[in-house]
Amino acid sequence: MEEKIPHVVIVGAGFGGVAAIKALAGTNVKITLVDRTNYHLFQPLLYQLSTSVLSTDDISFPVRAMFRKRKNIDLFMAQATDIDGKNKILHTNHGEIAYDYLIVSAGATTNYFGLESVEKYSYGMKTIQETLHIRNHVLHMFERANKQLDSEDVRRQMLTFICVGGGPTGVEEAGALAELVAVQKLDYPHLNFDEVSIKLIEATDTVLPMMPEKLRNYTLKVLRKKGVEVMLNTAVADCSEDGLTLKDGTFIPSKTVIWAAGVKANPVVATLGTKCDRSGRIIVTKTLQVPGYPEIFAIGDNACFLHNDRPLPTVAPVACQEAHAAVDNIRKLLSGQKTLKEFVYKDHGSMATIGRCEAVVSWGYLRIGGFLAWCIWMFLHLLRLEGIHADITVGIKWMWNFISGTRLGRIITNIKFEDIND
Amino acid sequence: MEEKIPHVVIVGAGFGGVAAIKALAGTNVKITLVDRTNYHLFQPLLYQLSTSVLSTDDISFPVRAMFRKRKNIDLFMAQATDIDGKNKILHTNHGEIAYDYLIVSAGATTNYFGLESVEKYSYGMKTIQETLHIRNHVLHMFERANKQLDSEDVRRQMLTFICVGGGPTGVEEAGALAELVAVQKLDYPHLNFDEVSIKLIEATDTVLPMMPEKLRNYTLKVLRKKGVEVMLNTAVADCSEDGLTLKDGTFIPSKTVIWAAGVKANPVVATLGTKCDRSGRIIVTKTLQVPGYPEIFAIGDNACFLHNDRPLPTVAPVACQEAHAAVDNIRKLLSGQKTLKEFVYKDHGSMATIGRCEAVVSWGYLRIGGFLAWCIWMFLHLLRLEGIHADITVGIKWMWNFISGTRLGRIITNIKFEDIND
Repeated sequence: MEEKIPHVVIVGAGFGGVAAIKALAGTNVKITLVDRTNYHLFQPLLYQLSTSVLSTDDISFPVRAMFRKRKNIDLFMAQATDIDGKNKILHTNHGEIAYDYLIVSAGATTNYFGLESVEKYSYGMKTIQETLHIRNHVLHMFERANKQLDSEDVRRQMLTFICVGGGPTGVEEAGALAELVAVQKLDYPHLNFDEVSIKLIEATDTVLPMMPEKLRNYTLKVLRKKGVEVMLNTAVADCSEDGLTLKDGTFIPSKTVIWAAGVKANPVVATLGTKCDRSGRIIVTKTLQVPGYPEIFAIGDNACFLHNDRPLPTVAPVACQEAHAAVDNIRKLLSGQKTLKEFVYKDHGSMATIGRCEAVVSWGYLRIGGFLAWCIWMFLHLLRLEGIHADITVGIKWMWNFISGTRLGRIITNIKFEDIND
Repeated sequence: MEEKIPHVVIVGAGFGGVAAIKALAGTNVKITLVDRTNYHLFQPLLYQLSTSVLSTDDISFPVRAMFRKRKNIDLFMAQATDIDGKNKILHTNHGEIAYDYLIVSAGATTNYFGLESVEKYSYGMKTIQETLHIRNHVLHMFERANKQLDSEDVRRQMLTFICVGGGPTGVEEAGALAELVAVQKLDYPHLNFDEVSIKLIEATDTVLPMMPEKLRNYTLKVLRKKGVEVMLNTAVADCSEDGLTLKDGTFIPSKTVIWAAGVKANPVVATLGTKCDRSGRIIVTKTLQVPGYPEIFAIGDNACFLHNDRPLPTVAPVACQEAHAAVDNIRKLLSGQKTLKEFVYKDHGSMATIGRCEAVVSWGYLRIGGFLAWCIWMFLHLLRLEGIHADITVGIKWMWNFISGTRLGRIITNIKFEDIND
């Protein structure tokens, strides 16, 4: 009689999904990874793609190549559409997959908080396609402004770049845009760079809320020094093709609004029908299980797990730690154990870059900002990239960028995103 | 009284256009480069982008960065639509530009020889967008075949890749696809690779017609050894979503037909109304001028120049040599000389790769095939890339590919091309 090997299905090839597969190594299970792409995307560096420092395949890694040596792992490239928890079936746009255990790590999409005009006219930055769209558009604005000899107003509108959201994504994007502008300045001798403006808009009274106050203030100082206009306590009301309207009625003419104000869980999460938080994340048990479905675990951006009475942030280290805990518990279930382990989050701190040579790092007792923090940030990100090849290429590009300031990714490829429908 | 500086307008940032700008260095002229992109594309390596060896910005270089130090050069990013030779005006989709001298180096597009179904259903490979389209599609076929458990016929159709055209592009693409398949084999343990087929279809009785017979036969031998089915004396009649029909009625089921059978000049060339050859190239004078318009020079893929009674081939060395000759003659005209110099082409030979470790080089008396030829090919291509940065990145990627066979560019980015309409 053939022994039935348990089937673990993992939805999403993000940090959580990939960590779960690695953690499952050596367990006698069949693993199917379901993702609508064939690559693991290193999302924390998307802002460097959007600002021409890195290119697409520096931050995206074919998942099959990552698990080449493991024959019990397969990728099923499809969009997960529905989780049928009762019958233990995952539905996708390419058919259904039966599972014994399911890890929901399908990541997040941009949260527009119901602002339809913002969703329509602003740029999200969660996928490769969206990010290339930003890069092409920003570079194109310089070319168009350079041809716009008549109207200063039109030029100023084209050269006003707005980032909304003072979290790490918004801060890093605004800082990187400021650096990009400095490079562009060398290439457009006929353009008046006083007409260029970068604005960072944040609804609360601070940027990088997870950081200690000292580093928050340092971040503000550095951003302003780099030419970013930081607008705190500023809420967005509306967006159009021609600019952004604030809650107080102010209109800022601009062709470029980058929306980094929040994320919400992948909509497939909601199809389970269990209780979710405001961001669409499943309120999981202390063992990371989905209430009512002991064989389903939700992690990363798909799980709402309270830590010190607040939900854990939607960052890679949380997803990775949760992946390990979920896999440990799946192993316990496989071996017939009834008592699972409760997840305990270890906070290792956080970090963010604010452009070339500047970063802030809050790590245990270490709280620093500046060049050293930037070096630590680079080192740790190189460590976390997949494979030596990416380390070398990205390392060289960063070094080159540091020495010469050059950004050779400044090409406009006229790409808009499009889904595959088949 | 202000001296009027002559305005030289160059259409196209390909090899010819870029060489012309470099050759014009030190001349007291204003130069405007008109191109619909903002980059110089290294077209001979597009086949490596299509097969995941290199990525987009390894082979495309922002032109502004190339001429950063020269304030008399500007890029006008627009599509040239019409040349008004009488009034010395170039029309574009972003307005008109008056010129004193015009260099027409607008490159070529794919020639489908009037086969409408082929134009609709096959893949051209002349631009970044078209090439990414091929990469995404080919990789996607493997993912789809891997999910197609029921029908061997459907799998075989998905895994049949056809290149049409036995010139350097077709040969290099077929060879690189064979290498890609070898890499894919490691990543799809559940797929039967006997079902994969690569076909190279050529209407004449030989591949690489510019090569000596010995190297042509060597190329055929290597291609066949790598698993490419070479079909000579085979003409294409029709193409559909489901496959290719040959002139003899044979139908080959396939989802992937890559058309590398010929090029024709950019349509803007025809707007001048002068005599063109079958490929739409202007039949230029011996001084590379356009008959009737002494201030217009046509070069590269836009010029038909007879050499030993045959038109020069549409390759980079021809465009570069012609650019230098055209610029020399513009300088003569600027200094009031009436006798211009006739262009004399120096044939330095040709070369092509046939996949990893294999190339053919015919260079003066040197006629070799194999590993040494492949090294020469790599060395010369690295020399011709723009900038040290590209040399380093591409060099490392080639070395990495040579050592490990890995191709990290195998990501499916779902991109289709789209023009900017504004």
